[in-house]
Amino acid sequence: MALVELKENLDLLSALSILEDRFHPLDELEEVDLLALEGYPPIKMGVDVLSRRNLPQYPASAVDGFAVKAAGTVNSSLRTPARISAGSYCWVNTGGGVDRSFDSVVMIEDTLMDGDTLLVTRTVTKGENIRPEGEDVTKGQVIARKGDHLDAFLIPLLIASGNSKISVQRLPRSVFIPTGDEIIPAEEWVREDGQSWDRVPETNSFMLKRLFHDWGFPLKIHGLVRDDETLIEDAVRTALMDHDLVIIGAGTAKGKRDHSADVIGKFSEPLFRGLRMKPGRPVIVGSSGNRPLVALPGFPMSALVICWSVIHPLLRILNGENPAVDLQKAVGAVETLKTSLLMHHSSSQGVMEWIRVKCGDIGGTIYSWPLASGASSTFSTSDADGFALIGSSVLEMPKGSEITVWTKRKIKLEKRAVYQGSNDPAIERIVSYMRERGGDLAVRSVGSLGGLSALARGEGHVASCHLLDPETGVYNDPFIGRLDKTRSWRRFKLFTREQGFLVRKGNPERISSVRDLADKGSIFVNRQPGAGTRVLFDQLLKEAGVQAGSIVGYDNIAITHFEAAARVSGGSAAVTLGVRAAAEAFDTDFIPVTEEDFELVIPEEFISHPGIEILLETLNDGRWRREVDSLGGYRWAF
Amino acid sequence: MALVELKENLDLLSALSILEDRFHPLDELEEVDLLALEGYPPIKMGVDVLSRRNLPQYPASAVDGFAVKAAGTVNSSLRTPARISAGSYCWVNTGGGVDRSFDSVVMIEDTLMDGDTLLVTRTVTKGENIRPEGEDVTKGQVIARKGDHLDAFLIPLLIASGNSKISVQRLPRSVFIPTGDEIIPAEEWVREDGQSWDRVPETNSFMLKRLFHDWGFPLKIHGLVRDDETLIEDAVRTALMDHDLVIIGAGTAKGKRDHSADVIGKFSEPLFRGLRMKPGRPVIVGSSGNRPLVALPGFPMSALVICWSVIHPLLRILNGENPAVDLQKAVGAVETLKTSLLMHHSSSQGVMEWIRVKCGDIGGTIYSWPLASGASSTFSTSDADGFALIGSSVLEMPKGSEITVWTKRKIKLEKRAVYQGSNDPAIERIVSYMRERGGDLAVRSVGSLGGLSALARGEGHVASCHLLDPETGVYNDPFIGRLDKTRSWRRFKLFTREQGFLVRKGNPERISSVRDLADKGSIFVNRQPGAGTRVLFDQLLKEAGVQAGSIVGYDNIAITHFEAAARVSGGSAAVTLGVRAAAEAFDTDFIPVTEEDFELVIPEEFISHPGIEILLETLNDGRWRREVDSLGGYRWAF
Repeated sequence: MALVELKENLDLLSALSILEDRFHPLDELEEVDLLALEGYPPIKMGVDVLSRRNLPQYPASAVDGFAVKAAGTVNSSLRTPARISAGSYCWVNTGGGVDRSFDSVVMIEDTLMDGDTLLVTRTVTKGENIRPEGEDVTKGQVIARKGDHLDAFLIPLLIASGNSKISVQRLPRSVFIPTGDEIIPAEEWVREDGQSWDRVPETNSFMLKRLFHDWGFPLKIHGLVRDDETLIEDAVRTALMDHDLVIIGAGTAKGKRDHSADVIGKFSEPLFRGLRMKPGRPVIVGSSGNRPLVALPGFPMSALVICWSVIHPLLRILNGENPAVDLQKAVGAVETLKTSLLMHHSSSQGVMEWIRVKCGDIGGTIYSWPLASGASSTFSTSDADGFALIGSSVLEMPKGSEITVWTKRKIKLEKRAVYQGSNDPAIERIVSYMRERGGDLAVRSVGSLGGLSALARGEGHVASCHLLDPETGVYNDPFIGRLDKTRSWRRFKLFTREQGFLVRKGNPERISSVRDLADKGSIFVNRQPGAGTRVLFDQLLKEAGVQAGSIVGYDNIAITHFEAAARVSGGSAAVTLGVRAAAEAFDTDFIPVTEEDFELVIPEEFISHPGIEILLETLNDGRWRREVDSLGGYRWAF
Repeated sequence: MALVELKENLDLLSALSILEDRFHPLDELEEVDLLALEGYPPIKMGVDVLSRRNLPQYPASAVDGFAVKAAGTVNSSLRTPARISAGSYCWVNTGGGVDRSFDSVVMIEDTLMDGDTLLVTRTVTKGENIRPEGEDVTKGQVIARKGDHLDAFLIPLLIASGNSKISVQRLPRSVFIPTGDEIIPAEEWVREDGQSWDRVPETNSFMLKRLFHDWGFPLKIHGLVRDDETLIEDAVRTALMDHDLVIIGAGTAKGKRDHSADVIGKFSEPLFRGLRMKPGRPVIVGSSGNRPLVALPGFPMSALVICWSVIHPLLRILNGENPAVDLQKAVGAVETLKTSLLMHHSSSQGVMEWIRVKCGDIGGTIYSWPLASGASSTFSTSDADGFALIGSSVLEMPKGSEITVWTKRKIKLEKRAVYQGSNDPAIERIVSYMRERGGDLAVRSVGSLGGLSALARGEGHVASCHLLDPETGVYNDPFIGRLDKTRSWRRFKLFTREQGFLVRKGNPERISSVRDLADKGSIFVNRQPGAGTRVLFDQLLKEAGVQAGSIVGYDNIAITHFEAAARVSGGSAAVTLGVRAAAEAFDTDFIPVTEEDFELVIPEEFISHPGIEILLETLNDGRWRREVDSLGGYRWAF
């Protein structure tokens, strides 16, 4: 391959202009049989198509009625109908052919029968209700032009005009080749036989298949290939024979077993490696003539943004779409929302950043906040309302910055309440019951203190808290009492929750108090600052006279009870403080510490918000309550 | 079935509210296997789904590098690297599992090798580059909620969380049963063996399949059923067993062989018959429990608007979509354009009307004009840029009325020139060559006189004419000379065309002059008032001293040369006056009458319009010229 300078860490725009320079439309034709067409890819006509027939191809009746000779109906009326004997008229359906021995059609409504004699009750003019041949389309007429999309309106016209086999522009053929030793096929992964403990399922192919489907392009999925350069080379060599775009999955970091760069160098002229984009940095693109070779990063969110910003443009270039780049279409944006950033966001200078956000309308301002940003995070990608692309020149985005969000679904913002507060499994479950009632709840787990501050700043419709005041030993009252007294705060005591230590089954480290944690050096998982559970833990430390510094893992942070429990259950930690429901879900032992009051706080001004009304209504839903009961450790306060 | 009043000729809104009252969401679940899913229908989750795994389910490396113990790297730097011997470190891929004997991962970029000893060039902190188990998703976490759409983001998450078989809301199952004696299957139609002379091809099923596909719902197509009540009953009875929506094709007029109403009455409670809508009036809807039965009109445009305004709402109701009615989505509108009506349009009072329109931007105003309005017209449906729905209270829409158009494709208005003028086969062919150059031409065949008037009113970028002045015997000059002299008009003489009489092969009626037409009473097809060819015919009559009234068919109108030729070739008429190209296309005899000058006229102010520039450029395209030469009868003027 030609010796060229491999561009590293390009910005996206430069990369796209390289792609537009280097690749061009396929401009090849193939024949499709409209009668057998399934799946309706977005194919375009390859040539102008002329009608092979007149439509109608005979004088056709425009109504249901009788073909007659107009001359025989002169001066007919309801009182003096013309009488036409059998053989001199003929029934004809709408659209049916009119024999040339007749010159008009009388509607059935304008006739009566007398035996087999037809009575015509009005005068018919010559040619009446007859559509002459070629009225709709004439033979030789151009009915479709090169480049026209084959849509629901054109298909029946083409068939009716006698063109069932048509030349269309061939769509680019793509193949995805997943690679990696740490990856196992999805079929193996879902088997749950424990074989897959330290493996990763191959799920990118499912995402790509769906994206290609939504964009309207075909995609073939190759079998999983081990991290072996020869095997990968063989797969790519074969793929290049009958594909226009070859995508190699994973292996794009500069790791020890990174073969993609070598393979791309072997079969193509490398165009660039790495984009100044986050996630999505480690992509490699090469050109084998007009066939792009792309090494796709392995992490799902990285793969996704490269699909949007590199693969989709490549497909559009190969398919001759103009403009070649249409990011909004790639993302599949349903709506574009101008939103106000709910929290400060730091981006890296010189790097474009894709963020996943959720949105909420609070008092007339549409706020958005970023979700977990990791390239590996699949939940936040799915959970997000939409995506935003932060420009590379942006470094710090203060709270309140305007941010444009491409939503991936219609959100009924007016019915959605924004919850900021404590993480709680029961609250997580109430959302579905609210949705059944037409409402919605956006849940941000920012801890009990975080929730109350958010309410104070007017950044939420509802908060929750379970905060122990160390001075008084009283829950919640002192904290809520400190809120602005010029505003009115409504409180809803929901339940008490059992808090305690979660330790591995059988309590191998024999932990029963904070003192034990310190003495035994057990690895602890803490919760984030501002979480009620952390406030409780600090209080326990204080009571026992134990310094935070003597707890191993005091700075290990989990955002939710389940996340903390997962680490204990998984073995990364020995102990955490959390609710009984988390212990039950993860089958850990539970050493009860206290029962705490959990309540909702709602500013008076939002009490009639449609989302809040539905939330309050749903608190009494028996199905939700039974589900919460089954989680364990809850006692209803009302 | 219950005895109820069958509502006749409802307005659409009343009909839709009946549908919303009578039908409700299916609310049934079915299991799908994500690993085998193809085609991606718009299915929604049937239940909340909890993760069955932690993701990652083990402490995973966030980078490509070496798993080490952080304690062994204290005070490491490039100058004083920590030396870690084989066995005390382990390579790990991004995403790979980190054995619990290690507590951190150092990136490969921060290491060197000395034999099999690893040199670590910086101090690593405990937990660095390790993603704890459950960081992304924890076991038991709600990852998808009832009603969530299964999209490209959720599918990989579901699989990774161990949920490959999921409960989804069953989509409505629909079937279309085409009926009619005059209809033949498309496979027979396209065979061109002459068997289909007075038949109509069954093309509605192809349109429905594509519409359902675009909307995302499955549709089964039943075989064609003859007009026999027993056969239709059998088909409907079987269809009702395993479908939620049964659509019977055609048979909705009150004709002699109209069985649909009877069948609907037999199997369901009829809800209404007929809508005050044009086209689309003859629809019948019945309810068999929660299963709608719909008799769909047979004409393509009628069937199409009933699909938009009745079938799509029914599908959305059965699928629990909110709102149930979304006409814009049904139509598949790409853009909504506010346009100004280019010509007066009369609608029928009390009837909603769907019109098909084309658009053009002339001097900053977006104009739209209706195309052929017949329910049977398939070409105008395909040719249209979009559709507009005229309210039932509207009777007359004067020129300049605002009309909202839902476009079915993106139109590059700024590059489209609007042509008003003479119908000509060569002009019809130039459009595709202009499109190749990025331009476009919207052609309105309004005749030579119509074109010049349109230009004078500022309603076109270019006109064409071939007008013989009877006084002087000169072509075009006198007519163009009458245009407003304060504006500047650019003229482009394109070619001469041979005009003559088109008669059936072998000239059976021995026609060679207008005198023969009058004497023999041959049926003539004329062109519309304002057409240059009609002007020529009138001149021939005048020269021969023949009265228009003595020509049979003087008032038979065809809009294009091809349409007129189709009637002669098809046998509806004996003779027309037209260009040689039409005679060649329809293989009729041609009796030459004259050669006429055909030219384009362009107002000076539009000469740099991008569409006009491309038109003028394309006039010199050799491929277009060769194609025009092959049509016959043209002689180039430049």
